[in-house]
Amino acid sequence: MSSHHIVRDDQEPALIIANGAECSKELLGQLLEWSPFVVVLDSAIERVFELGIKIDVLLGDFDRGFTPEYYLNQQYPLEIVYAPDQNKTDLEKAFEYLIERGHKAVNVIWATGRRADHTITNLTNIVRFKEQLKIVIIDDHSKIFLLPNKFEKWYTKNSIISLIPIGEVTGIHSENLYYTLTNDTLTIGYRTGSSNHVAEDGMVIVTHESGNLLLIESFD
Amino acid sequence: MSSHHIVRDDQEPALIIANGAECSKELLGQLLEWSPFVVVLDSAIERVFELGIKIDVLLGDFDRGFTPEYYLNQQYPLEIVYAPDQNKTDLEKAFEYLIERGHKAVNVIWATGRRADHTITNLTNIVRFKEQLKIVIIDDHSKIFLLPNKFEKWYTKNSIISLIPIGEVTGIHSENLYYTLTNDTLTIGYRTGSSNHVAEDGMVIVTHESGNLLLIESFD
Repeated sequence: MSSHHIVRDDQEPALIIANGAECSKELLGQLLEWSPFVVVLDSAIERVFELGIKIDVLLGDFDRGFTPEYYLNQQYPLEIVYAPDQNKTDLEKAFEYLIERGHKAVNVIWATGRRADHTITNLTNIVRFKEQLKIVIIDDHSKIFLLPNKFEKWYTKNSIISLIPIGEVTGIHSENLYYTLTNDTLTIGYRTGSSNHVAEDGMVIVTHESGNLLLIESFD
Repeated sequence: MSSHHIVRDDQEPALIIANGAECSKELLGQLLEWSPFVVVLDSAIERVFELGIKIDVLLGDFDRGFTPEYYLNQQYPLEIVYAPDQNKTDLEKAFEYLIERGHKAVNVIWATGRRADHTITNLTNIVRFKEQLKIVIIDDHSKIFLLPNKFEKWYTKNSIISLIPIGEVTGIHSENLYYTLTNDTLTIGYRTGSSNHVAEDGMVIVTHESGNLLLIESFD
């Protein structure tokens, strides 16, 4: 008899599967490879179960008349977290749940596409968790995260990078982007750094003084 | 011999077909029914031509190495507008083109989905054209537009309505929404009015004092 044990120290990013458009099976497979702690939001469980994914937590307000207990019989163990607060989205509640549980980082899929209200809310509301949880939203075309005041990462030439201010962001400097920013201010709706790209293979450095700056890596 | 004439006074909304995710054929058909003035952005023309849609203008910077002139031979007349300004998106250039041409209103499709940088930029940059052009962004799940300081429209009970501030919006009041706003302030990333809904069949009234407030009607 073989014993198959996965020891998780919750240092690996958790994975939240939200309720928007599905990503490719390939991306999903990559994210599941290291057996992350998996949280599924509300009725997305119906689509997730069809894919045969082992999940840890089902979280939602379950206000659309389905019984989460049904899924307990389908997969055991499974923690069901009933989160009825109507002032928060299920995604925000999942972030809070992970923070309480001691997680430091999370990848989020199925959070974009479909309903535009969900997409824009999911992409912008992550600013509230900036200090507590490293959040990366991923779909088939994009990888999205908030920048610390000094951000450095190695990119290949011509990688598409957008800098989107959630509100107003001041004192922005960039190195190794095609359109250089020098003590610039970006303001959502008026001046954003969309569709910039990396000048040369190497480190990209982006610093900013105040505000919430989102970086989006794009793949066509 | 019959004479088939369409007289357009440019009072009907124009239609911009952007370069994001395609909408359903049904939605496209509805929007084409009144023979709007159709502007297609850049390489989206490849997908639009496959659908057999008669277009008026092809606009873009054409920086991806395709020759727009090819399409002149496919459909005549067709105006090709070369718009190389790298500081603006093709969608912004199309808005400016329509304003110059005297249009007052436009519907935009294929502006959401796919790349998240394009989606968030397209949804938020419409604030710059608020005074000049009535813009409605439509996809299979959403209808999105900026509110005047006083907005009134008839909705059926339980219609899903989100109020998304592009920046900060103050002095917001609502009537006939389930979660009532009373002299409220909404701030992108921190406090938004996502996933509200209509209380009863009837007029919904939303007023605000300052800032740019986006309304999103959602269909699941």
